[in-house]
Amino acid sequence: MPDVPMDPASSFAVTPRNRVKRRPDRGRYDRASIYPILDAALVCHIAYVIDGQPYCTPTGFWREGDTLYWHGSSASRMIERQGEGLPVCLTVTHLDAIVQARCGFNHSINYRSVMAYGTARMITDEAEKLRAMDAFVDRSFPGRSKVIRPASRQEIKATSFVWMEIEQASGKIRALAPHDDEEDYAVPAWTAMFPVRQVIDAPVECERQMPGLPRGADTAEYVAGERLDAILPRTYRTTFGS
Amino acid sequence: MPDVPMDPASSFAVTPRNRVKRRPDRGRYDRASIYPILDAALVCHIAYVIDGQPYCTPTGFWREGDTLYWHGSSASRMIERQGEGLPVCLTVTHLDAIVQARCGFNHSINYRSVMAYGTARMITDEAEKLRAMDAFVDRSFPGRSKVIRPASRQEIKATSFVWMEIEQASGKIRALAPHDDEEDYAVPAWTAMFPVRQVIDAPVECERQMPGLPRGADTAEYVAGERLDAILPRTYRTTFGS
Repeated sequence: MPDVPMDPASSFAVTPRNRVKRRPDRGRYDRASIYPILDAALVCHIAYVIDGQPYCTPTGFWREGDTLYWHGSSASRMIERQGEGLPVCLTVTHLDAIVQARCGFNHSINYRSVMAYGTARMITDEAEKLRAMDAFVDRSFPGRSKVIRPASRQEIKATSFVWMEIEQASGKIRALAPHDDEEDYAVPAWTAMFPVRQVIDAPVECERQMPGLPRGADTAEYVAGERLDAILPRTYRTTFGS
Repeated sequence: MPDVPMDPASSFAVTPRNRVKRRPDRGRYDRASIYPILDAALVCHIAYVIDGQPYCTPTGFWREGDTLYWHGSSASRMIERQGEGLPVCLTVTHLDAIVQARCGFNHSINYRSVMAYGTARMITDEAEKLRAMDAFVDRSFPGRSKVIRPASRQEIKATSFVWMEIEQASGKIRALAPHDDEEDYAVPAWTAMFPVRQVIDAPVECERQMPGLPRGADTAEYVAGERLDAILPRTYRTTFGS
């Protein structure tokens, strides 16, 4: 796990593994493009292979420097068995718009995505696992790990966290207005782009809320109607710095 | 590709590959649970393996019966090379809420997800490819393929569509209010659940919209502020039936 903060201006090496083959003009390899896409998301999808069979598992994750952490997955036993680590691809995708066109070929979606490659390993050290549990809570709700009940040894034992150093990564961004081949603008089809955003609603309080307790400071960013991909970068920075 | 509609009351066989191991109480294997999770989404993540390396690629997809189709992926060349097909896992995830608790262990998210397993094959027949292009457009915008310019042979050649029969699938649903261990309700931490939803905004019209053209009937479901996972099942049913 990293001691030296990475320079966001620096880039990941481009290899056959992470080179963007389809629409290479949309490819990004610099940390300044890749980090924000990761830090605006709570859920990723992880691809791994067991006995030749690929699996794609959604799970909660976060980033610290070039290290990605995620919550115990069904691959846990496999990782433990392998010992030397399991090759994975961790992918994050934000859907930003559905984009119409005047022919099927130009219909598209706008999105921001990152594919990160590395070798997954279990966190086995108890203190490091406890730190990961706190980081996982604080990543969404800064400071909350200090106001809730600390994890019991039983809970620490029952929780799996996996980590990997990003060996390579690529980002891909499409952010285009509707466009068509010149001759198709004469086609009488009403054409538009429909922006998509993921928002937070007003909180549903626990039915057994302690009477008179003020709303927690750890939820300050969760304003009803706000975009989740705007909230998460802020809670991220509060907890981990920029 | 299927001739006989599947009975939604029927279930996928449970095998070691698709059995939900972590929290099996959340597992679903019946089509009545799995189809709606798939049909409410536009984007999936696909895991596949090339030379032992797993990849996780986001892409647009849709379902017809037990067949899943998706838009040309970076795996296309690999699938063509393999000939006999490429094992994949196609996963769809809807994030429904971030759920706080009074200890880290009970912090969680609510979600609906499906992992579907099968063997990916390219659509090579030109007529079938054209049908897929139309279905891809109509899946989001019912009837639109009839009002736009038909695909050229060049476009059909340049587009890759992949399909697979679902051999096995599992759904997983978590929809729980905040809850804690009995003794933790005395912890003075304000606790709530934050619902998350993905919504559509007002359309951004093409700058070169034909003057006087009325808004297309194919966008009737795209009411600003509406949930995307409510729109898509309706456009799906209009295009493919239930």
